Amino acid sequence: MAGGTRELIVDLGERSYPIRIGAGLIAELGRMLTERKFPVKSPILLVTDSSVERLYAPGAEESLRASGFTVARAVVPSGEASKSLEMLDVLVEKALQAGLDRKSTVIALGGGVVGDLAGFAAASYMRGVKFVQIPTTILAHDSSVGGKVAVNHRLAKNIIGAFHQPEFVLFDLDTLASLPDREVRAGLSEVIKHGLIWNADFVAWCEENAERLLALDADALGYALYEGCRVKSIVVSRDERENDLRAILNLGHTIGHALEAVAGYGELLHGEAIAIGMVGAARLAGRFGYSAEIERTTERIFRKFGLPVRIPDHLATDRIMSAMLHDKKFSEGDMVFVVPTAIGSVEIRRDVPSAWVTDIVNGLREGN
Amino acid sequence: MAGGTRELIVDLGERSYPIRIGAGLIAELGRMLTERKFPVKSPILLVTDSSVERLYAPGAEESLRASGFTVARAVVPSGEASKSLEMLDVLVEKALQAGLDRKSTVIALGGGVVGDLAGFAAASYMRGVKFVQIPTTILAHDSSVGGKVAVNHRLAKNIIGAFHQPEFVLFDLDTLASLPDREVRAGLSEVIKHGLIWNADFVAWCEENAERLLALDADALGYALYEGCRVKSIVVSRDERENDLRAILNLGHTIGHALEAVAGYGELLHGEAIAIGMVGAARLAGRFGYSAEIERTTERIFRKFGLPVRIPDHLATDRIMSAMLHDKKFSEGDMVFVVPTAIGSVEIRRDVPSAWVTDIVNGLREGN
Repeated sequence: MAGGTRELIVDLGERSYPIRIGAGLIAELGRMLTERKFPVKSPILLVTDSSVERLYAPGAEESLRASGFTVARAVVPSGEASKSLEMLDVLVEKALQAGLDRKSTVIALGGGVVGDLAGFAAASYMRGVKFVQIPTTILAHDSSVGGKVAVNHRLAKNIIGAFHQPEFVLFDLDTLASLPDREVRAGLSEVIKHGLIWNADFVAWCEENAERLLALDADALGYALYEGCRVKSIVVSRDERENDLRAILNLGHTIGHALEAVAGYGELLHGEAIAIGMVGAARLAGRFGYSAEIERTTERIFRKFGLPVRIPDHLATDRIMSAMLHDKKFSEGDMVFVVPTAIGSVEIRRDVPSAWVTDIVNGLREGN
Repeated sequence: MAGGTRELIVDLGERSYPIRIGAGLIAELGRMLTERKFPVKSPILLVTDSSVERLYAPGAEESLRASGFTVARAVVPSGEASKSLEMLDVLVEKALQAGLDRKSTVIALGGGVVGDLAGFAAASYMRGVKFVQIPTTILAHDSSVGGKVAVNHRLAKNIIGAFHQPEFVLFDLDTLASLPDREVRAGLSEVIKHGLIWNADFVAWCEENAERLLALDADALGYALYEGCRVKSIVVSRDERENDLRAILNLGHTIGHALEAVAGYGELLHGEAIAIGMVGAARLAGRFGYSAEIERTTERIFRKFGLPVRIPDHLATDRIMSAMLHDKKFSEGDMVFVVPTAIGSVEIRRDVPSAWVTDIVNGLREGN
């Protein structure tokens, strides 16, 4: 399988689309658009960020132009602050100046921020144009499946958005070589999450192949991204509009989001925060009488990937609890959590006593 | 039928919704939400504008509260400038402060501007919440069918938006009593347009009942709005995403939009500009060999409604032509127009020589 390209179909009826994972795929971008009969007369907007632009935008544009397409480039500052209505305004201006019409395409080249912003621009420009994603981070494997696109409001994250499925997703493994080590680990945290909710064999495989994955071995990484995307796409295709099942994707996120909010965005990467959150959820499983093996395995695998499994001491329990209650609009008393029932399987519990959660947050301290 | 409430279903499969037209309907708003099982626990955002607020917002809120709903009010300045991303930001802030959740509803109480802005807020807040429209202008009968919602960018109108169908539309005829006479006439221009593209009998009925309509006779107006909405809903239900048929709704709009753009928005009301545009389209019909009766009837009916049928002399032909070419991205040579083939029937022509259009614009001068 080494060097081979993998392809997966996200099954959403008439909105189904393929995810292609492999090396050197950016060079094939123009050809893929031609094969899929994207109209050459309609200009394309390539959206990227200031850290990715130099590395991959010229190659993507060259591939598009070689196939006869016209492409304009929009570069946003890298970082979460670019997920804003102000930046949407900038992209729309760029799209108008470049003459994008209703048959045009917006391509996102970058991580989750670029994907979310460019995706919302694609969803709303002329009430919706085509969208293609080229994720350049491991973490973005998660946001590239499911069609959730959004920008932030200063009072809330991801609050203004749409469901807008891409035409296809290209995961060029070569782009991952430039990722900082800490982002590699944090990205793999979401990959492992997909194993923990759905596929015990894949969890075992990740643990066995930790060194290869951390060394960015192309074949191991290609398989891990494929499997992560596959699990997410199964869940999403059964619940496109996020009514019920999709909630299981939030394993580790209730505590994780609270940690991010209290730490201030940036101190803990998202993947790090949810690793700690998944250990917390595994402890909840123990409270509900499920096997203690769940917690042992969860903690062991995250340690193996060099991810944090304890809450930094300076994040006070009462602030974490209040962030959680506010985030999820929990009333006093019971809380809702995704709780593992075994490795590879979870359930939604709406009867989690908030006192248990306080205990677990207190217990998950460095040194414990 | 006098005083009776009319109801029409816009047939869009699982997104179908009713339009209710009658007197005193705002007082029934809360009861309608209860009947339709809108959750009382989820707060409602009522969006209105500075000219409508005082007149109808208290009644709408009283009706909602009497049925147990919690409602917050957001008031935007009246006028096209409120269709902006800045105002979307304000509405989202208001929605967050009022605690709107995924099961909440945004209600638009006002004309087309409020409907478009509040509709886009409903489409994008938390990636989509429920939307209810209470149009308070005749013109808004048009925008209340079809689910097109949007805000403007300073470089282009309606360029950032979505297709988001309302749960229902309430047309309370009492709210039309406060409309200035000029807006009544301009609103009826779109109503007549729906007759011209689809229903010759309705055109004849409008002509016979012009005095009653202009006097805002409730039964005549109720019927005219019903028929206008019915024609639009037939067209929209056959082409929800605006792929082909829906283009016939643009009768009179190619010239009309150009006149609005050249005059500067405000000098000519939209309904006035398209009345002139429909006379122009009727002249094109003559060029294509269709009956001269089309032009005579079109011009006669708009004169009867006190609407303009000639282009103001200070709007230069070359500026109108260049606005048209730019708006529709026509290349030199042939242009695309909706052309009547008889009263009550139109076709899309892609072979309209631009020289004909120049002639017609030159000929449609005051004094001619």
